[in-house]
Amino acid sequence: MASKYVYFFGNGQAEGRSEMKNLLGGKGANLAEMTSIGLPVLPGFTITTEVCTEFYKNERQYPAGLKEEVAANLKQVEALMGRTFGDAANPLLVSVRSGARASMPGMMDTILNLGLNDSTVQGIIAQSGDERFAYDAYRRFVQMYSDVVMGMEKDILEHLLEQKKEERGVHLDTDLTAADWKELVGAFKAKIRETLGQSFPEDPQDQLWGAIGAVFGSWMNQRAITYRKLNNIPADWGTAVNVQSMVYGNMGDDCATGVAFTRDPSTGDNYFYGEYLVNAQGEDVVAGIRTPQPSNLHQKKPVDLPAMEEVLPECYQQLAKIRDILEKHYTDMQDIEFTIEKGKLFMLQTRNGKRTAKAAIKIAVDMVKEGLIDEKTAVLRVQPSQLDQLLHPSLDPKAPKKVVAKGLPASPGAASGAVVFTADEAEAAAKIGLKVILVRVETSPEDIHGMHAAQGILTARGGMTSHAAVVARGMGKCCVAGCSDIKVDYAGESFVAKGNVQIKKGDVVTLDGSTGEVMVGEVPTVPPQLTGDFAILMTWVDQHRKLKVRTNADTPHDSKVAREFGAEGIGLCRTEHMFFEADRIMAVREMILAEDLEGREKALAKILPMQKGDFIGIFREMKGLPVTIRLLDPPLHEFLPQEEKDIEALAKTLGVTNQQLKHKVEFLHEFNPMLGHRGCRLGLTYPEIYDMQVQAIMEAACELVKNEGYTIVPEIMIPLVAAVEELKRLRANAIAVCEDVLAKYGVKVEYLIGTMIELPRAALTADEIATEAEFFSFGTNDLTQTTFGLSRDDAGKFLPFYVESGLLPEDPFVSLDQNGVGLLVQMGCDKGRATRPNIKLGICGEHGGDPSSVIFCHKVGLDYVSCSPFRVPIARLAAAHAVLDAK
Amino acid sequence: MASKYVYFFGNGQAEGRSEMKNLLGGKGANLAEMTSIGLPVLPGFTITTEVCTEFYKNERQYPAGLKEEVAANLKQVEALMGRTFGDAANPLLVSVRSGARASMPGMMDTILNLGLNDSTVQGIIAQSGDERFAYDAYRRFVQMYSDVVMGMEKDILEHLLEQKKEERGVHLDTDLTAADWKELVGAFKAKIRETLGQSFPEDPQDQLWGAIGAVFGSWMNQRAITYRKLNNIPADWGTAVNVQSMVYGNMGDDCATGVAFTRDPSTGDNYFYGEYLVNAQGEDVVAGIRTPQPSNLHQKKPVDLPAMEEVLPECYQQLAKIRDILEKHYTDMQDIEFTIEKGKLFMLQTRNGKRTAKAAIKIAVDMVKEGLIDEKTAVLRVQPSQLDQLLHPSLDPKAPKKVVAKGLPASPGAASGAVVFTADEAEAAAKIGLKVILVRVETSPEDIHGMHAAQGILTARGGMTSHAAVVARGMGKCCVAGCSDIKVDYAGESFVAKGNVQIKKGDVVTLDGSTGEVMVGEVPTVPPQLTGDFAILMTWVDQHRKLKVRTNADTPHDSKVAREFGAEGIGLCRTEHMFFEADRIMAVREMILAEDLEGREKALAKILPMQKGDFIGIFREMKGLPVTIRLLDPPLHEFLPQEEKDIEALAKTLGVTNQQLKHKVEFLHEFNPMLGHRGCRLGLTYPEIYDMQVQAIMEAACELVKNEGYTIVPEIMIPLVAAVEELKRLRANAIAVCEDVLAKYGVKVEYLIGTMIELPRAALTADEIATEAEFFSFGTNDLTQTTFGLSRDDAGKFLPFYVESGLLPEDPFVSLDQNGVGLLVQMGCDKGRATRPNIKLGICGEHGGDPSSVIFCHKVGLDYVSCSPFRVPIARLAAAHAVLDAK
Repeated sequence: MASKYVYFFGNGQAEGRSEMKNLLGGKGANLAEMTSIGLPVLPGFTITTEVCTEFYKNERQYPAGLKEEVAANLKQVEALMGRTFGDAANPLLVSVRSGARASMPGMMDTILNLGLNDSTVQGIIAQSGDERFAYDAYRRFVQMYSDVVMGMEKDILEHLLEQKKEERGVHLDTDLTAADWKELVGAFKAKIRETLGQSFPEDPQDQLWGAIGAVFGSWMNQRAITYRKLNNIPADWGTAVNVQSMVYGNMGDDCATGVAFTRDPSTGDNYFYGEYLVNAQGEDVVAGIRTPQPSNLHQKKPVDLPAMEEVLPECYQQLAKIRDILEKHYTDMQDIEFTIEKGKLFMLQTRNGKRTAKAAIKIAVDMVKEGLIDEKTAVLRVQPSQLDQLLHPSLDPKAPKKVVAKGLPASPGAASGAVVFTADEAEAAAKIGLKVILVRVETSPEDIHGMHAAQGILTARGGMTSHAAVVARGMGKCCVAGCSDIKVDYAGESFVAKGNVQIKKGDVVTLDGSTGEVMVGEVPTVPPQLTGDFAILMTWVDQHRKLKVRTNADTPHDSKVAREFGAEGIGLCRTEHMFFEADRIMAVREMILAEDLEGREKALAKILPMQKGDFIGIFREMKGLPVTIRLLDPPLHEFLPQEEKDIEALAKTLGVTNQQLKHKVEFLHEFNPMLGHRGCRLGLTYPEIYDMQVQAIMEAACELVKNEGYTIVPEIMIPLVAAVEELKRLRANAIAVCEDVLAKYGVKVEYLIGTMIELPRAALTADEIATEAEFFSFGTNDLTQTTFGLSRDDAGKFLPFYVESGLLPEDPFVSLDQNGVGLLVQMGCDKGRATRPNIKLGICGEHGGDPSSVIFCHKVGLDYVSCSPFRVPIARLAAAHAVLDAK
Repeated sequence: MASKYVYFFGNGQAEGRSEMKNLLGGKGANLAEMTSIGLPVLPGFTITTEVCTEFYKNERQYPAGLKEEVAANLKQVEALMGRTFGDAANPLLVSVRSGARASMPGMMDTILNLGLNDSTVQGIIAQSGDERFAYDAYRRFVQMYSDVVMGMEKDILEHLLEQKKEERGVHLDTDLTAADWKELVGAFKAKIRETLGQSFPEDPQDQLWGAIGAVFGSWMNQRAITYRKLNNIPADWGTAVNVQSMVYGNMGDDCATGVAFTRDPSTGDNYFYGEYLVNAQGEDVVAGIRTPQPSNLHQKKPVDLPAMEEVLPECYQQLAKIRDILEKHYTDMQDIEFTIEKGKLFMLQTRNGKRTAKAAIKIAVDMVKEGLIDEKTAVLRVQPSQLDQLLHPSLDPKAPKKVVAKGLPASPGAASGAVVFTADEAEAAAKIGLKVILVRVETSPEDIHGMHAAQGILTARGGMTSHAAVVARGMGKCCVAGCSDIKVDYAGESFVAKGNVQIKKGDVVTLDGSTGEVMVGEVPTVPPQLTGDFAILMTWVDQHRKLKVRTNADTPHDSKVAREFGAEGIGLCRTEHMFFEADRIMAVREMILAEDLEGREKALAKILPMQKGDFIGIFREMKGLPVTIRLLDPPLHEFLPQEEKDIEALAKTLGVTNQQLKHKVEFLHEFNPMLGHRGCRLGLTYPEIYDMQVQAIMEAACELVKNEGYTIVPEIMIPLVAAVEELKRLRANAIAVCEDVLAKYGVKVEYLIGTMIELPRAALTADEIATEAEFFSFGTNDLTQTTFGLSRDDAGKFLPFYVESGLLPEDPFVSLDQNGVGLLVQMGCDKGRATRPNIKLGICGEHGGDPSSVIFCHKVGLDYVSCSPFRVPIARLAAAHAVLDAK
């Protein structure tokens, strides 16, 4: 089959459709769709993503036949526009833009005004009747093209431009004349030849293919690779290239260019939210160099500039109608770009708009109310990972705060951290665990790694759709943008805010992304409130999911938070954290350092009532929901001091010599503690420890059942089992203790005994292990460590390199490695169920709160996932997605 | 189906057969067989092993119907013997003996003369006409029964016996009269009642069931459990119980008892090799209390006592005929027990005789020559693990040695070590890595753990079939027994040898188990010579095996040794060991401590010629056989000094401050180095290291091919791969280096690039990894560590407990865990072959030299195993067993 590589659109007809995003990219598919539904779109064509894929497969060669197809499509555009590409008298100029399947803001390169040379510029002068406009367009093209296609250092030409302004004694670009621009075009070309040793291409065909090649080439530039990595976009998706007739927003005051969201992308409020600039080209809005004006009166508040509704009322009304058409057509909030050329509106782009979690929820719930979508679609409209934004604390409204500046509330949330001024500093600080706020005049794609590393972003320039704002919202990161209250001094590593407050590198500030406020110092926060639209959405979520969602919680407080977030039980209650509390660590150390069983039992007797108290608190908080308690897991030496002075202090307290204590500490030292004397191995060699813990659990349960009338079914979990015989013995021990306690209290309490599946051997022999286990909980943290042979504590030296360089698609400690670790989980489930069909299966590794891992857990048929309290809603939503996506 | 629990034998008829060992135990099956083929066996019956299994399943209750079956069989015995059990006038006495499926010398308990009480003793007096004999038998019964069945401390009754002798003013048991024995029986019974609070049972039925219960009970005593653990005998096999009419070797000088091997169990020489005692009961020979006399003149040499051939010529001739019958019938060397009562010979037992490796080989080869067995059977007659005995050095015949004593050459081999006098001391010393020789007057089952821990065993009393000799041969441990040249002084912790040489605890001695010589000090050894019968057997072995056997060798010397042992290549050449050599560790440290790539490359350039020299030496030694070279594997910090003073010295040499060096060492520290920055992770982050190694390998190969005409196909192995992408990149790097070297030398050398499968994820994704690997080598050491989550360096604190207490059937680092790790190996093979059908598959963990693991490797279809040089013949034999056992 001969492939079709190019898809035409124009004059109400298009070969593509919005469903063809994979082939045409998002931009191309939607240009075709808008054309088909009768919106004003200038004609053009899209070169498919398959060409990009072929291009990289065949050592950057285009497939045969492409050139001919492009030529034929260009002819059609010429026919519709009544202009000819490269014609000196009546030239067609085009834009060349990338457009990938998923929107990648700021990542890809665009070239405008393509087709200009020394002869066609004359045709443009004739068409526009404006020589200055024509040469300004020409010099913009030369600057853009030499930068993006030829690799010319931008600053060199900028420098010539500055020189020219100095020469002319003017300050603004707008003060330069047609002659000045013309001279600059010549000077630019000479400088390019001198610097690069090659001439600027005069032939518009050479220009076109150079630009197409540059778009494909930019698919593999570092920024694009980084963005894809952060957003899990596969490299083999490729990008399409859109070639379209030019339209000009910069031919006078009846021209404008703008971007808009059909609803507020930050709050989700249902009004038309946009920004525009009079007499400007599109790139000027997105780049954030000029502060843009609002679309309409509704949104005038933060910026006091004339609205489009006032300045260009007819175009605004046309645009408002298009807004309605698009929302009804796409049944989703749209992010559009438009240009007005001499009072005539043209659509450049529409796509589903990025939005904050809060906006996503509000829009989804509102659209259900408006009858645009159904509840299932609403659930799928909110990405589980987005919820993270909502599930973290916001500023305590009652806390005193010293506001020193106010900007645009570009991405909600609250963040505190030390001020840094470069992305590299932000990254370096984050690597050593410091929290920082990245402060920039404006951000650019080169800053993405620093934005990722920072707690929040503050920019002095740029609007709600500036690079900083869009990227920060995508990351779910707090951002205050366009904060003209601050003056940034990069050289002095400081900024000055209102009231002449100087803030230096390292000073702590707090940002409130929901109000745009910038405060000095750290402001306390309060937990998120999950009510209103969120609560409505979650009821739909819970109707659809099959997986139960539990939480990992070790304290009554965490248990309470998690229950409020919808946790349906505790999947992992780690008992060792309780051991570290100041009032009991001494008894724990006594137990460890005891010379014999008697000594250990004496110390354990001190710990018993404290552990029992812990469990009473947790059981009471969970109100009868299931609670899985893992018996002691870490190696004993983790509880002992390592530093000389701490050893001395402990020795004194215990009444032994430093030397004796050091010997014991040394004796307990392990080469690979991760693979050492821990988990059930401790329970087997020191059965009295587990006996005490089981006794504490059962006594706590019995007391609540007896005195407070709860129904409690404790789930006792034995960690680190590698062989069924380990579990068999420990289970027998545990049952003996449980039965003793039950007899003592004279009440009936059911209990389950099960195990973690956290070693490869446990998964491989799960059929044997299931003979002794009433439940399995996959401990995917340790399972990942052992399956990869990778210590999380040590991986810092190479794992980041692995992920960055694509050796691993993702950090396997964040997102479950489905091919490897996942295969063991699958085997564990299948083998466990083969032996014991009704075995309860869950997961308690940190993957339990990672959306793609939750979907995997649904697919392999687990009964529940368990995650940290703040991730419970994320897991609930992901579990619903798993069901709805599969349909 | 109603089970049959009891099998009768007697009067030439038997319900059992020799094939029924699983059901009747070895002793019972062979008593039945001997009865059937017409040998003189007194009637009796066997209670099956199934009863033992049922007994433990049902909380030590006998299955229904057993009592009736025993009664019926006892009736049959009474009928044949013309005596009645418990009858005062003409009583039947019986022996009750255990008999497990596998022979377990000294482990189980035996009771003789059962049926005696104050009334039946009168019948025995009547039958034997010897009151003294009757009361002697009676008191022996009471002693034995009270010890074994009732749990009476042996010494208490022994003490009464000593008192009686003192009272009578005599020194020897034989000087006591019938009246004395009669009084002692009474005194014994009174003492038992006083000590235990229960009477000695008078009713023969009670005695019988007590004894049966004690046999079954002894299956779970500590000695039996230890023996089973050492010999990999499952606990659920159970033991049978044999009840048989008594026969007496102690009724006068026309009585005797003895044991014999149909060939020499130490050398395999084909003559009748036995020992006997006149006027003794069977236990006297085995216990080693009296030094026994030889069977015939052939073997008179070491002990100058009258031979049975001289003393009891007719019985000897009869026995010699039986020897021929048994060898022809069983076609294997037999270990027999017999008793002569008043000139009449009775067979008590026959079984396949335990033998040394040397004897096993000689007997197998001889029996093929004699036409008794075929070559395949001969191969199966030698246990692979036994070969270990032959594959270790023997004493250098040219070395000077100071022989201070000579005993029986009870178990061959040579051993040096410090003298200890108790099993506990031996065990304690072995635990801290000391080599010891255990010196005892005689050994008993309580000493097994010490014999296991010692390098060799020396006893002052006991013959070639004494406990020490039999157990030592079974363990393949050097033993000199019955060395009457020495006088042991336990209290003084020393022994005195010939010439009044005193040897104290801690002094080093050397034993030669092949000559019986005891030497002062450590005598040097020479490597084993594998010629003669061994070479013949190995040609048969090699005809049958399918698995190739390679070796793990890092030096030309090891390569040579391994090739002489039949290695067909190197399966694992570890390059890091080369790095540790004194002349290059400094360059290695320079490389590690270099601040940048340039510094590393400079240091690597120094290492390159040395590595190349290593590979030239190894390739040359292997004469074109395949050599798999693993690139650098351990974390870099392993090469750095840890001690303060070593750091100081290194800092000085490198010209850096102590502090700088310490920082680097600290930076490289890892929490879990096993799971850290090692293997291919180093090769990816520091590609220059692997590049240097690949260059050294290929230059070495090219030089030998070019200058010496070898055919060499180097196999370059990338360690610790977890994901295919790692291998893909390193393979590309390696190919680039290889092709550069080949171009430089202008020769054609094929090479393979493959990987270790040593992480669970590698096995799980072997289908992906095989796209980039031409071979897999299963690194089962690390695979076991990660699959179990068990660090070999740290497991010492609990793994011995695990194996002893049956939590794990075996140490998984010794014998491959087939259920867990083996499943991954199986998956790795299947998935690897699915992607690349001709992929080369091998194993290079230490399991490659463990017989049961080798058999597993054959079953999963590996192409080769690789093991340490000395284990190569073991692996070859195991590989042949794998084929022949399957048939």
